[in-house]
Amino acid sequence: MLPVNLYSDNVAPAAPEIMAALARVDVGPAQPYGQDPESKALKAALSDLFGTEVWVFPVSTGTAANAIGLSAMTPPFGAIYCSETAHIETSECGAAELFTGGAKLQLVRARSGKMDVDALDEAIRKAGKGLAHRAQPATVNLTIATERGTVYPLKDLERIAEVTKRHGLRFHMDGARMANALAALGASAADVTTRIGVDVLSFGATKNGALNAEAIVAFRKDIAEELRYRVRRAGQVWSKMRYASAQLRAYVEGGLWLRLATQANAAGKRLSQGLVQVPDVRMLEPVEINQLFVEMPERVIAGLESDGIGLGRRDGGVRMVTAWCSTNAEIDHVVARAKVHGARAAA
Amino acid sequence: MLPVNLYSDNVAPAAPEIMAALARVDVGPAQPYGQDPESKALKAALSDLFGTEVWVFPVSTGTAANAIGLSAMTPPFGAIYCSETAHIETSECGAAELFTGGAKLQLVRARSGKMDVDALDEAIRKAGKGLAHRAQPATVNLTIATERGTVYPLKDLERIAEVTKRHGLRFHMDGARMANALAALGASAADVTTRIGVDVLSFGATKNGALNAEAIVAFRKDIAEELRYRVRRAGQVWSKMRYASAQLRAYVEGGLWLRLATQANAAGKRLSQGLVQVPDVRMLEPVEINQLFVEMPERVIAGLESDGIGLGRRDGGVRMVTAWCSTNAEIDHVVARAKVHGARAAA
Amino acid sequence: MLPVNLYSDNVAPAAPEIMAALARVDVGPAQPYGQDPESKALKAALSDLFGTEVWVFPVSTGTAANAIGLSAMTPPFGAIYCSETAHIETSECGAAELFTGGAKLQLVRARSGKMDVDALDEAIRKAGKGLAHRAQPATVNLTIATERGTVYPLKDLERIAEVTKRHGLRFHMDGARMANALAALGASAADVTTRIGVDVLSFGATKNGALNAEAIVAFRKDIAEELRYRVRRAGQVWSKMRYASAQLRAYVEGGLWLRLATQANAAGKRLSQGLVQVPDVRMLEPVEINQLFVEMPERVIAGLESDGIGLGRRDGGVRMVTAWCSTNAEIDHVVARAKVHGARAAA
Amino acid sequence: MLPVNLYSDNVAPAAPEIMAALARVDVGPAQPYGQDPESKALKAALSDLFGTEVWVFPVSTGTAANAIGLSAMTPPFGAIYCSETAHIETSECGAAELFTGGAKLQLVRARSGKMDVDALDEAIRKAGKGLAHRAQPATVNLTIATERGTVYPLKDLERIAEVTKRHGLRFHMDGARMANALAALGASAADVTTRIGVDVLSFGATKNGALNAEAIVAFRKDIAEELRYRVRRAGQVWSKMRYASAQLRAYVEGGLWLRLATQANAAGKRLSQGLVQVPDVRMLEPVEINQLFVEMPERVIAGLESDGIGLGRRDGGVRMVTAWCSTNAEIDHVVARAKVHGARAAA
Repeated sequence: MLPVNLYSDNVAPAAPEIMAALARVDVGPAQPYGQDPESKALKAALSDLFGTEVWVFPVSTGTAANAIGLSAMTPPFGAIYCSETAHIETSECGAAELFTGGAKLQLVRARSGKMDVDALDEAIRKAGKGLAHRAQPATVNLTIATERGTVYPLKDLERIAEVTKRHGLRFHMDGARMANALAALGASAADVTTRIGVDVLSFGATKNGALNAEAIVAFRKDIAEELRYRVRRAGQVWSKMRYASAQLRAYVEGGLWLRLATQANAAGKRLSQGLVQVPDVRMLEPVEINQLFVEMPERVIAGLESDGIGLGRRDGGVRMVTAWCSTNAEIDHVVARAKVHGARAAA
Repeated sequence: MLPVNLYSDNVAPAAPEIMAALARVDVGPAQPYGQDPESKALKAALSDLFGTEVWVFPVSTGTAANAIGLSAMTPPFGAIYCSETAHIETSECGAAELFTGGAKLQLVRARSGKMDVDALDEAIRKAGKGLAHRAQPATVNLTIATERGTVYPLKDLERIAEVTKRHGLRFHMDGARMANALAALGASAADVTTRIGVDVLSFGATKNGALNAEAIVAFRKDIAEELRYRVRRAGQVWSKMRYASAQLRAYVEGGLWLRLATQANAAGKRLSQGLVQVPDVRMLEPVEINQLFVEMPERVIAGLESDGIGLGRRDGGVRMVTAWCSTNAEIDHVVARAKVHGARAAA
Repeated sequence: MLPVNLYSDNVAPAAPEIMAALARVDVGPAQPYGQDPESKALKAALSDLFGTEVWVFPVSTGTAANAIGLSAMTPPFGAIYCSETAHIETSECGAAELFTGGAKLQLVRARSGKMDVDALDEAIRKAGKGLAHRAQPATVNLTIATERGTVYPLKDLERIAEVTKRHGLRFHMDGARMANALAALGASAADVTTRIGVDVLSFGATKNGALNAEAIVAFRKDIAEELRYRVRRAGQVWSKMRYASAQLRAYVEGGLWLRLATQANAAGKRLSQGLVQVPDVRMLEPVEINQLFVEMPERVIAGLESDGIGLGRRDGGVRMVTAWCSTNAEIDHVVARAKVHGARAAA
Repeated sequence: MLPVNLYSDNVAPAAPEIMAALARVDVGPAQPYGQDPESKALKAALSDLFGTEVWVFPVSTGTAANAIGLSAMTPPFGAIYCSETAHIETSECGAAELFTGGAKLQLVRARSGKMDVDALDEAIRKAGKGLAHRAQPATVNLTIATERGTVYPLKDLERIAEVTKRHGLRFHMDGARMANALAALGASAADVTTRIGVDVLSFGATKNGALNAEAIVAFRKDIAEELRYRVRRAGQVWSKMRYASAQLRAYVEGGLWLRLATQANAAGKRLSQGLVQVPDVRMLEPVEINQLFVEMPERVIAGLESDGIGLGRRDGGVRMVTAWCSTNAEIDHVVARAKVHGARAAA
């Protein structure tokens, strides 16, 4: 068995279907900057998927997708409402501030990573709309599969959409692990976007089997028109776009993305169910996708590390993330080793 | 024969060695964000190549490389001196302005794409250093293989470096077609960077056989330290960095990049030599690499287009760019067709 | 009696000494942009005041002073630590974000407007210094006379300075009501700046008798050098600078600023002592300067408003601010009217 | 006689009417941030002047007026067309780039400071509208009384307005010396703005008798709405706004501004007519307002300087600027001294 690495789902290699897609388009000349047939086919494929015309901008990272997307929805004097644990707040080194020209992130109280809808509503109401000394409410950002390993139920998404639209704001969804969320919810891509009024989506693929491509998906033509220029000046328009488009097209073709996510989620569940049998080990958050936050004795953590098993130490615990390629054997191995270390710890 | 496309060198597919490198690293888990062995090996390989320790930041496009690199060398109130035909001025939709926070590009008179050294010196001298109402001279940007298909001779590079350093500015090199320049000059990578005091280089690969990766190469540790954060907030740190690092490593390994560029340059020369035999066809610029600016009768242009041959219409002519994979058969086909159309035109 | 307006201290007119200073310099020609004798005298006067050479940049507002000052201390990828009630966070429409190029404000828990020193220390320690995905700790911002009407004791300032310097951050002080703070503390200007290592100060004057000038005071030459350009491109270098410099010079000459602040503070105390005698009226914060946050029955608030007395409704109460020109008669009138309305309310 | 200073018109003091206006409003409390009666009267006065409702934002400098005004008309990926000698290009240290978030200034060939209309038209036509790699044409900026001391004739203004609107761009006018231009043209304020479709005007006052206030005048409500926030976050909303509004109101009341400018222009003409009688002295540009560019022998320049007469050395000559308060005696003194020095020079 290869070393097991649960540090993140982005430690995994690319899925075979993604690699095959690269090979498929690696033939002869193709017009650059998205004027190639593969990129056009991608737009058609995603428009089908979302049940409406969408505009697709492949980019290299989720941070780029988030920050550039937000910049086309939020004026420099605007405020973006997001969870206090949102990736755009904690993990992007101020990318949203850079690309928007200095908009403000306004943090909304969250539980298990999910924004409190009432707190969101109140925050917008008290934001001072129309008062020149206050950043103006502009956008709501939400990570559908949250940074704490949970998923917004459809009902919550609908309520947040309602609050967003009632106040005249725009709705931005961070879909870094969107496939995992859909697999968990049993919902379609359209259910969580088109039907509730998402304006721009960061469409994640890299954490779930792609090699190095994500996409900004715009549901509004006016935003898409502005994005053309914003993506370009962000240095995010690949000349050989076909290699990004091919990854993304293969990713959704025949439901590959959902199959990969289902596997990752199942591995997460199996891991969670195994680990909680170890004395003094417990889940810090509900395990709804492939991301676990686990409290475990230091002896167990150190033991797993000395076994060469990759994991991420966080404040008060560890994060473990399974991937599209996690096997039962790997998961069972980790659980078995945790039991060994746990037994020693308890002894 | 596949359709011949000379619209740009970025219409070409990836070189087989680059594709093989992707497959090579597509195995098992690897730490994300450049903490993987392949990325470390890339740093070692490029440090060897340049004959000094360098810091390498793979990014997705040349625009990103240029603009982010410049942002770590130029304060928001700074001025960047560049040729009036520089890519950062004409073709990046204001990326340098975005990432620097509003620095000013100051255009220097150029001939065949090459900055006039005396004009550069004079522009800096008259810039108003120390006067608060003037953007402050900060950086010189130079594209070694220019946007007009020419290459700076070593002597010119040395003179520009001397002017740059004498005024206390920093030196930024756009190496989008660096391999083509080195092949033309018969110079080493160190000759045109380390030895003359380049501070930051945009290291191009995509136009010359890579799939979708370029790199910022920093020659100074203080700039590199700042780049860590600037690249991240630009959304340009791939999580699965190994796939970019592998491309770049394979690109330089065993001199692949120079072999590919030599082939592209040779094809450019062959094309040029063939075309000038067509009546009323002439080169608008010296052909020193793989990029031709050609004056030809409209009948010839339209004829080639109707043959399905890709080319780029520009003000007063066409641009034709050969690539690493251009074959003699393709070039000869284009020349033959041009002759056919030219004969009709002349008739 | 003129209508009494306690909406803010900036509703007050200019002090006679300030108006006289304008007239004094309104004679004949003077070099522009701060090259005039009055501006040079201002630098000397403030250097005397702070007991060290300082560099002075008059600007038109406190928001400009804060945001431009911070921009010369904080890289775009930096984090600024401030109280959750800081003016730069709540009341400047994102000015700090604009001028820094997108730095992040990190809010520190505060009580009565004063940052908790331990919370500040912990926030910096946990900020992820050196991690590329985190905004990098750069600057601490503190409003010496807080937005809640309190003043940091010298001991707290020293502790915050110690935390700031220990972590290698820069120290920015918002002195919008600095004179009121000094009057309350019985401290000198140097005590709260030079002696504890403040790097840049927003030196407020408008709220305390000036007409329309504030100043950025830099205590470090390197920061001052950068400010020259940043202030200019911010559009904050008056051509007829003498009129701003004259205001600021008169403001500190002979201790005028402290006399004015002492009067405003005394009026605040008198108002507070009077109001708490009204049934159901209480101070929401300690009254340490000229700014009161008062809980009072709606009947009393509405009554005062119908009397034409200016005040500011805030969440759960009213803000009342006395000024350099508040008279005992005015204060007593307000208290008397509150008692009348309070008696009705209680009845 | 006081020392004569022709270094710039901003070396002059404030006009007595402006000083009187300050005293007039320096009474009792007034709501801050433009909610005072004087600021409301200013809006009415300027709406009268321009013959349409306008929105007025007093700011502290012309640089602020220009850059913030442009930022509400130009997206970050936009291009601003201006004369190659435009103040926003040469003298504002990148303010337009800062406030727009990195828009590009595109320089248009000019003669005697006036943009060539055909060159403007061609530049916009060739700008690559709709091409993602090009900054998108957004705004035309024009200084009505140019940086070279000339004034656009009405016919030229109309042609530039026509080009601007035909291409769908917005029209920004820098009116730093607008009064001087109107006095020279014999035109009304509406003639050069409302009637030709100016969208935003930088309304200058400081160079022509005001103390320290300029204004952004918006002719469109949508732009004005955005300006409210942009001006605030620029740190350009004075709390004691009445002192700025009073200056601006007095400035236009009863035509004061035109009287002052007429006097400055007449002084400029007298100076010009006198100087050209000196051997080897000639005007480098037509003298149409109060600003002269003069070629004179070094002996004459040095002689005037040694007389204590202020002037501005420029490349190849000197700039001399008369002001609202320039007297015939002063002008005649300068001419007489030039003749003395010129006689020596010729001898």
